[in-house]
Amino acid sequence: MKTEECLQRIGDDLWFTEIDRNNLKIDYRIKEVVYRENSPLQEIIVLDSYDFGRMLVLDDAVQTTSGDGYIYNEMISHVPLNIHPSPKNVLIIGGGDCGVAREVSKYSNVERIDMVEIDEMVVRTSLKYLPEVSGGKPDPRVNFIFQDGTCYVKENRDYLYDVIIIDSSDPVGPAVKLFELDFYKDVYDNLCKDGLMVCQSESPIFYTEIFTKIYKNLSSLFPIVKPYMATVPTYPGGFWTFTIGSKKYSDVNPGKFDKETKYVNREIIESCFALPNFVKEELGIIN
Amino acid sequence: MKTEECLQRIGDDLWFTEIDRNNLKIDYRIKEVVYRENSPLQEIIVLDSYDFGRMLVLDDAVQTTSGDGYIYNEMISHVPLNIHPSPKNVLIIGGGDCGVAREVSKYSNVERIDMVEIDEMVVRTSLKYLPEVSGGKPDPRVNFIFQDGTCYVKENRDYLYDVIIIDSSDPVGPAVKLFELDFYKDVYDNLCKDGLMVCQSESPIFYTEIFTKIYKNLSSLFPIVKPYMATVPTYPGGFWTFTIGSKKYSDVNPGKFDKETKYVNREIIESCFALPNFVKEELGIIN
Repeated sequence: MKTEECLQRIGDDLWFTEIDRNNLKIDYRIKEVVYRENSPLQEIIVLDSYDFGRMLVLDDAVQTTSGDGYIYNEMISHVPLNIHPSPKNVLIIGGGDCGVAREVSKYSNVERIDMVEIDEMVVRTSLKYLPEVSGGKPDPRVNFIFQDGTCYVKENRDYLYDVIIIDSSDPVGPAVKLFELDFYKDVYDNLCKDGLMVCQSESPIFYTEIFTKIYKNLSSLFPIVKPYMATVPTYPGGFWTFTIGSKKYSDVNPGKFDKETKYVNREIIESCFALPNFVKEELGIIN
Repeated sequence: MKTEECLQRIGDDLWFTEIDRNNLKIDYRIKEVVYRENSPLQEIIVLDSYDFGRMLVLDDAVQTTSGDGYIYNEMISHVPLNIHPSPKNVLIIGGGDCGVAREVSKYSNVERIDMVEIDEMVVRTSLKYLPEVSGGKPDPRVNFIFQDGTCYVKENRDYLYDVIIIDSSDPVGPAVKLFELDFYKDVYDNLCKDGLMVCQSESPIFYTEIFTKIYKNLSSLFPIVKPYMATVPTYPGGFWTFTIGSKKYSDVNPGKFDKETKYVNREIIESCFALPNFVKEELGIIN
């Protein structure tokens, strides 16, 4: 749908309506439209909302907010980085809001952070208008590559990575190919022989088909596949999943979790792999 | 606000809008209004929604749905019943949708289930129109007492309970007193010397003040206070908390979890006590 219909003035108030699905809408009361521009790929809007602070909206879908973006970004970053015992080279695919790069930068043992994002304007916008998410200034180790992530992993012969983090938007628009088996095969080939990947794997309630397809695809490639969960208030239903595909490591590293975070701690990293029965059933995991 | 404004026809579609907070609204597309009546205490509506099936709405607030009601009802019931080693007498305060009574009935060792609900019409409506939540027909052990829960625990001299489950609506309208210290004191006095209670303790994001007040109040009475979390899609933000106040027991019983459930299993019961850093900070718990 057109953004014009999503931003509406009702009386004195400005409201942004997100239509995630045909049958459920979420309306946010907005203080102001901070930024609005079309990139070659999508419409980018930054809104200042009453409940969640600044929000990054791409083609009418809320991607991250100052208020709760840390939950998603911490969960997709710290969980894999605490399963690999010594991650040195990290690849981020997508992650235009720079929140994942910010979390990965908290690991002093990580030497190289390659971030392949298809839309440079999302990065520029986030660094400028969403400092609570992006951190404002990237760590010197972050190497931005503005390219289609699927092409990058197909063509890359220079580096093998210890950890690859796939921080994609939903499988509509530019991100569709990031949910295909061919892409995951290339990701597999870009990993060291003991490497692991993680991707955001959507809602197990509203996008059951996508969630289960990711699990199936990764299971056809990796010996170890582990979905995990977090609650992200601004994503439909709150319930969100991530899925790890790993060549070797499956357990959380021992020792204290010593990073400064708002959501993640050692108990959270250990407990996030507990899956409700209905999720196990979707995946065909027997209790 | 008036329900007339909450139910609106837009084009061919009927929408129900829940205004949880001034700055956030959730709109559900509705197939039909199944039931609508005023009890002496509140307006009761049952709607059939596209995404969550039938929904129980009290004074314009969604209380439970066929689609996700089991998450809340299983979490508030099975967690305390797996911390107390041998619950025989259980008191439910509130719980008009009968979902908690249904979960408690799964325990064959429970002999007595007293359910004190202020609004008999909510019970009748749920048994008739929300069988996916209520089970349709209550277990013979369930003893309905239609009375104000605060009066019941103040006056009761007949029974001491092993477990008391406080399944209240939000602290507006009839449920306000169920969040006060005086009430918790009476609950304490209605528990056996090794008894424990649990209450729904709201969202740590949207109702921080209520959540932390409950923790503080229970901490002034019980030696053991343990908040835990679940994701409930139809509650604002998805993030929801429950808080246990216990006189003696704090650990999950050993052994297999053998109840038929859609959400809860042993891993969930063990992992739900992991609290994100921001929640620990709200409660003043040091990492």
